[in-house]
Amino acid sequence: MQRIKYQAYIDKIQSPEKAALLIKNHHVLGVSGFTKAGDSKTVLPKVAERALHEELKLTVLSGASLGYDTDADLAKNGALYKRMPFQADPTLRKSINNHEVLYVDQHLGQTADMLQNIDTFKIDVAIIEALAITEEGYIIPTTSVGNSPIFAEMADKIIIEINGSFPKSLAGIHDIKLLKKQPNREIIPVLQSDTKIGDPYIKINPEKVVAIVFTEVPDSPAIISAPDEKTTAISGHILQFLDKEVAEGRLTESLLPLQAGIGKTANAILSGFKDSNFKNLTMYSEVLQDSTFELFDSGKLIFASASSITITESCAEKVFNDFDQYKDKLMLRPQNISNAAEVISRLGVIGINTAIEFDIYGNVNSTHISGTKMMNGIGGSGDFARNGYLSIFACPSISKEGKISHIVPMVSHTDHTEHDVDILVTEQGLADIRGLAPTERARLIIKNCVHPDYKDQLLDYFETAYALGGHTPHILQDTFSWHTQLKKHGTMKMNELASNHF
Amino acid sequence: MQRIKYQAYIDKIQSPEKAALLIKNHHVLGVSGFTKAGDSKTVLPKVAERALHEELKLTVLSGASLGYDTDADLAKNGALYKRMPFQADPTLRKSINNHEVLYVDQHLGQTADMLQNIDTFKIDVAIIEALAITEEGYIIPTTSVGNSPIFAEMADKIIIEINGSFPKSLAGIHDIKLLKKQPNREIIPVLQSDTKIGDPYIKINPEKVVAIVFTEVPDSPAIISAPDEKTTAISGHILQFLDKEVAEGRLTESLLPLQAGIGKTANAILSGFKDSNFKNLTMYSEVLQDSTFELFDSGKLIFASASSITITESCAEKVFNDFDQYKDKLMLRPQNISNAAEVISRLGVIGINTAIEFDIYGNVNSTHISGTKMMNGIGGSGDFARNGYLSIFACPSISKEGKISHIVPMVSHTDHTEHDVDILVTEQGLADIRGLAPTERARLIIKNCVHPDYKDQLLDYFETAYALGGHTPHILQDTFSWHTQLKKHGTMKMNELASNHF
Repeated sequence: MQRIKYQAYIDKIQSPEKAALLIKNHHVLGVSGFTKAGDSKTVLPKVAERALHEELKLTVLSGASLGYDTDADLAKNGALYKRMPFQADPTLRKSINNHEVLYVDQHLGQTADMLQNIDTFKIDVAIIEALAITEEGYIIPTTSVGNSPIFAEMADKIIIEINGSFPKSLAGIHDIKLLKKQPNREIIPVLQSDTKIGDPYIKINPEKVVAIVFTEVPDSPAIISAPDEKTTAISGHILQFLDKEVAEGRLTESLLPLQAGIGKTANAILSGFKDSNFKNLTMYSEVLQDSTFELFDSGKLIFASASSITITESCAEKVFNDFDQYKDKLMLRPQNISNAAEVISRLGVIGINTAIEFDIYGNVNSTHISGTKMMNGIGGSGDFARNGYLSIFACPSISKEGKISHIVPMVSHTDHTEHDVDILVTEQGLADIRGLAPTERARLIIKNCVHPDYKDQLLDYFETAYALGGHTPHILQDTFSWHTQLKKHGTMKMNELASNHF
Repeated sequence: MQRIKYQAYIDKIQSPEKAALLIKNHHVLGVSGFTKAGDSKTVLPKVAERALHEELKLTVLSGASLGYDTDADLAKNGALYKRMPFQADPTLRKSINNHEVLYVDQHLGQTADMLQNIDTFKIDVAIIEALAITEEGYIIPTTSVGNSPIFAEMADKIIIEINGSFPKSLAGIHDIKLLKKQPNREIIPVLQSDTKIGDPYIKINPEKVVAIVFTEVPDSPAIISAPDEKTTAISGHILQFLDKEVAEGRLTESLLPLQAGIGKTANAILSGFKDSNFKNLTMYSEVLQDSTFELFDSGKLIFASASSITITESCAEKVFNDFDQYKDKLMLRPQNISNAAEVISRLGVIGINTAIEFDIYGNVNSTHISGTKMMNGIGGSGDFARNGYLSIFACPSISKEGKISHIVPMVSHTDHTEHDVDILVTEQGLADIRGLAPTERARLIIKNCVHPDYKDQLLDYFETAYALGGHTPHILQDTFSWHTQLKKHGTMKMNELASNHF
């Protein structure tokens, strides 16, 4: 109660069960939550529960992924008609691939614009987690900002979920500005990762607030595997490359603002900066993981801007129990600002993201297994890869005991084209393909990034295709033979197959 | 001579032949020229000639395409080692596809950044066409700005080619600003298509100027076929769509700044706006074609910003003989500003570009024939498609008497991913795929855009793939069968092939 400074909301306090009843069949929901942080812990799960007993087909827009099993339960209970712009849940993924749920995979920086530009998704209800309510009835968010400002702006009704588990000292880390629709779109005057341009709360029309609920459930903790031999090698190659850029005068020892995607590889890469020669690093990213706080603690990192904080349980304990030590070093922004092409290009962000697979010409697949099955969404990787100073994509060269090569003749789904990729790296090595023609890229990628088990096979493909001519040599009828063979015979290795046959 | 207001240059006047001798083997050249406008008419052709008799392997960077046969002669005479960031010449294209010339195909807005970020292309000599020279020795460009400012900045030496064929009244239409390398990159404060932010000339260090030559050769005229039934139908679908957006309140009758790619289809689409209901239109584009001046004359268009003027002979006669009537209505900018993500997203440009082919999920191929052979480059289409308010791609549904369908199961090369495409249109109709999941897109595209001759065949592919499951259903082993069959049997029509077999 003491977290609500706006009296008129007191009457609107109710149970999550009752608040969940405000959601009707066919509603479009805009829910807070970005990389599992700052999502609805009570109302949305109750909505999912309702779908067990009644017909509910909802369109659910979020910032990015939701925590706990919320997406899984929504999917499993049949509550989802359409989901966007991101997901990373195994159950939901299955429903998407089975055509039970429609999924729209979007650049995370572009959802707010889409909502302003088309009328398909009139937000009926926004469900937004709050740290507290200001005297004006405005929302102070928790560990993510995501798309909450645009959802609150466009929604007919707003349900606020006040989460008492976060320290009040989180207030002040948010920098929120709603961008006007074109032709009135303003300059986004961020000149450095720490430039403040907005308010520390989401301005809303208090009359739209229909329910206030309380929760004490913390964010679901990030689960991040420790760095292993491969991710450490990848991190090493990137650091070595950046060292060279500094040594040759193209970058300074504070580099340029860093962005890192989510997950084990990106986290391990960033962790590697602890033991680097770089100083006074900054981040302009979409998510802050454990590695960000390791870098703060090591003194390497001086400021980090993002749209969310997604950390493990032990890291959360450290960070939230003494948040004041980090408070002035970080800022959370709406995702259409953390991921804005304008800012990313101006600041010259160094974007580090992971690939499912990439091909010999530098195209990257971030989303689909064998071209058809959605894994996670593209997230913000494209926002950074297209517009940053450097676009780095990393993945292991092989997996499944070598049965899968992550470098293939042609990616089975293209999320980032050859025009948007600068650096490719595996545990084998790094290829800097800037300024290279496709055939130059192919030779360098095969030489530096491909696992020895697949080098000859990939070189064979390339040289055979090269002999046929063309700016981007391919043998169209064989292009996906690695993927189809994997499906049929369980391995991409052609000679293994050949020897099996004899 | 009276076009040179800086005395120290008078001594540097020489013949194109002699100036061409300043180019040495293995040099990197930065040459003016964007969509055939404002290119070197005398020095670069003389360089090409030299290659007939001596070893010259050059890396040639331009704004975009060059005029006349310059690219063809450079290629034919073996003078090219590497060419970037664009080309549209049949002879050069052949050399690229035969691996005689390396070609790097780039987003036109990103070449300047690349030059600041890597040292691979240290510009030895810049060759820049000028309308005149200011009292400070600065260059007033002619019909294009392109990459000339960054070339002049980074080059060791500069050759200026003064073209007396253009009216002096062109002076003042250029708005030139050099952007600093990150982390010092400044805001690009363009708030409307007519915002002036720079100087009307290219500031250079006069000491770098090594030669001044004169020419009276005009730009090679654009050759644009008249609108035909198909392009008129495409234009009609787009206008009808935009009418609806206005009627339903999502756009106003002045729309948002328009961008149109080069060539017959884009020109025809833009021409169609003459007879539309829209008023006070503006353009924020990369090239101004005949249609731009038709729209000025009709009173529909009030301002146009671009990086070049590329018009037919008859249009040039009209425009340049009385340039004062257009002078205040247009502005030419460097291509990293005409194509800047920052400005395009802020202004909310409506981008209209042409596709070679697109697929049922909304991916677009702008560059490659059957995935391997380079046609033209990607140009600026990606700069606008990614960042604009609306990303429209158009092409005919079929060509070669119906033997080729331009909508295929999967594009054979991806230049614009599903994440970056809003509207697809053929003479058959238009598909607005914003906010749609892949399977929804497929059904709509097949229904609205595909030629009747291919509808069943494409629906068969989709439904068979759909039954196999997956977010983006595909049958990987058959995905490119349309392209391979075209190569083998001269048609993409499967039933025609079947009946041929009996």
